[in-house]
Amino acid sequence: MSTSLTPTLRGLLSPVLTPFEADGAPSVPRFIEHCRTLLNHDVGLAIFGTNSEATSMSVREKRALLDAILAAGMPAARMMPGVGACNLDDTVELACHAVAAGGGGVLMLPPFFYKGVSEEGLFRSFAGMIDAVGDARLRVYLYHIPPVTQVGISLSLIERLLKAFAGSETCLVDTMRHGGAGVISATANVNPGGIAGLLRDWQHDDADARQAALNQVRATFGQFPMIAAMKAAMASGLNDPAWNKLRAPLVELDRIQRETLLRQLDALSFRLYRGQVEEAAAH
Amino acid sequence: MSTSLTPTLRGLLSPVLTPFEADGAPSVPRFIEHCRTLLNHDVGLAIFGTNSEATSMSVREKRALLDAILAAGMPAARMMPGVGACNLDDTVELACHAVAAGGGGVLMLPPFFYKGVSEEGLFRSFAGMIDAVGDARLRVYLYHIPPVTQVGISLSLIERLLKAFAGSETCLVDTMRHGGAGVISATANVNPGGIAGLLRDWQHDDADARQAALNQVRATFGQFPMIAAMKAAMASGLNDPAWNKLRAPLVELDRIQRETLLRQLDALSFRLYRGQVEEAAAH
Repeated sequence: MSTSLTPTLRGLLSPVLTPFEADGAPSVPRFIEHCRTLLNHDVGLAIFGTNSEATSMSVREKRALLDAILAAGMPAARMMPGVGACNLDDTVELACHAVAAGGGGVLMLPPFFYKGVSEEGLFRSFAGMIDAVGDARLRVYLYHIPPVTQVGISLSLIERLLKAFAGSETCLVDTMRHGGAGVISATANVNPGGIAGLLRDWQHDDADARQAALNQVRATFGQFPMIAAMKAAMASGLNDPAWNKLRAPLVELDRIQRETLLRQLDALSFRLYRGQVEEAAAH
Repeated sequence: MSTSLTPTLRGLLSPVLTPFEADGAPSVPRFIEHCRTLLNHDVGLAIFGTNSEATSMSVREKRALLDAILAAGMPAARMMPGVGACNLDDTVELACHAVAAGGGGVLMLPPFFYKGVSEEGLFRSFAGMIDAVGDARLRVYLYHIPPVTQVGISLSLIERLLKAFAGSETCLVDTMRHGGAGVISATANVNPGGIAGLLRDWQHDDADARQAALNQVRATFGQFPMIAAMKAAMASGLNDPAWNKLRAPLVELDRIQRETLLRQLDALSFRLYRGQVEEAAAH
């Protein structure tokens, strides 16, 4: 285990949305296409995160998606698959698969079924995973998202393990000014150019203004269930209604929500994969 | 789907504790032995519940445990395996396996990663599972345990699906007086005779006194993390320290907790598999 960051994972990563077919099966062609677009915008692939509906997929399904983008020629070093699950067996299987493929690192949720568990128990979870994978190439990124898991990762546990990335682009500029290595941003799915551009230019004079504009886009999505809202923007921007599909227990936006969202995004001159911020920067 | 209860599952069930070897692997011989003891006390087997650390095991591991007790000759009709997971693929695999084996019903948690999800999303989860299993023999019991899952099952959802069992023996007598079908009780792992006896005798004059005594035993275990405390009682009562093993993120009781528990149980004349209530009844 190492506290150094994998160089190929510095910068901006997106928890990659997972498209599903009407019957709920992952849509492999759409997934490949979306990953390729993100990479082309210099956005790393945090596949199988919260915004990916990762916990709504089995290990078998996640392995197949990972294999599909590898087979399509995308570099494993730019991927950070989420591997966390409530049970170690599944976590280890997926992590081993990612490491064997040459993955730059894995993102690991704490086990999240039991609440109020001890730090010792959580330490055993992470340590048990690292021991079981038993590969010096493994890099573990701790995934701290207590609003969802209800299980946090304490500072003292973090001190014993790895330093986590920032979890939202709303503090991107601040993060970089404080020496951060990068950011994982959900809306990088739909606005990769804008956010990656600001990450490049965070020392420019207009950084604060561009941060404010980014935050406006995020706030617009954030008025709605976030994953459903981003998928609605994908469906609209790609003119592909299939992107509206979510897996239970999540559900798609209703018609009024979708129209409200798209109207507001329009007012911000937001365009899929090419947000207002990038356009402002081009002026 | 049916709202009738499987006759073989009426009465007392226990969420069956899962013993683990020191390396974390499920201990099959101890599991078989414990299940046999519970059945001998007329306690049905709610294997893979919360108290079973079910979410800390993969589907592969749970299938192996189910197969082991079937191979040991235990009747599938007296089993209610927990099959709930965050993803449908795993839930369906385990449910199909249980139904094919002739199981009397399956206990299903809602998907529990995302919080604040809609009733429609939860309905799709349960309905999707029932559709995917596609077997008229399937009986689904809804598992409502919001303190752990943080995701509840609403009354209107319940009305659309099946009526749930009561979840604790502390209201056993009340449940039966109100026409309940039975009870799933965690401490039935360690006190099966006492609780099953009261379930048989709930119309006797001493029912309230015996209920109070049962509640005292449960409160004693409840002072500590419940699963760890029951495993400590198993280790002590069977003189088998291996029973103290839990899977991360849960941890075993420390020495002082264990000694306090055992001393208090002793003061209640509690003996493993044969609690004070049964002895009182025998007088």
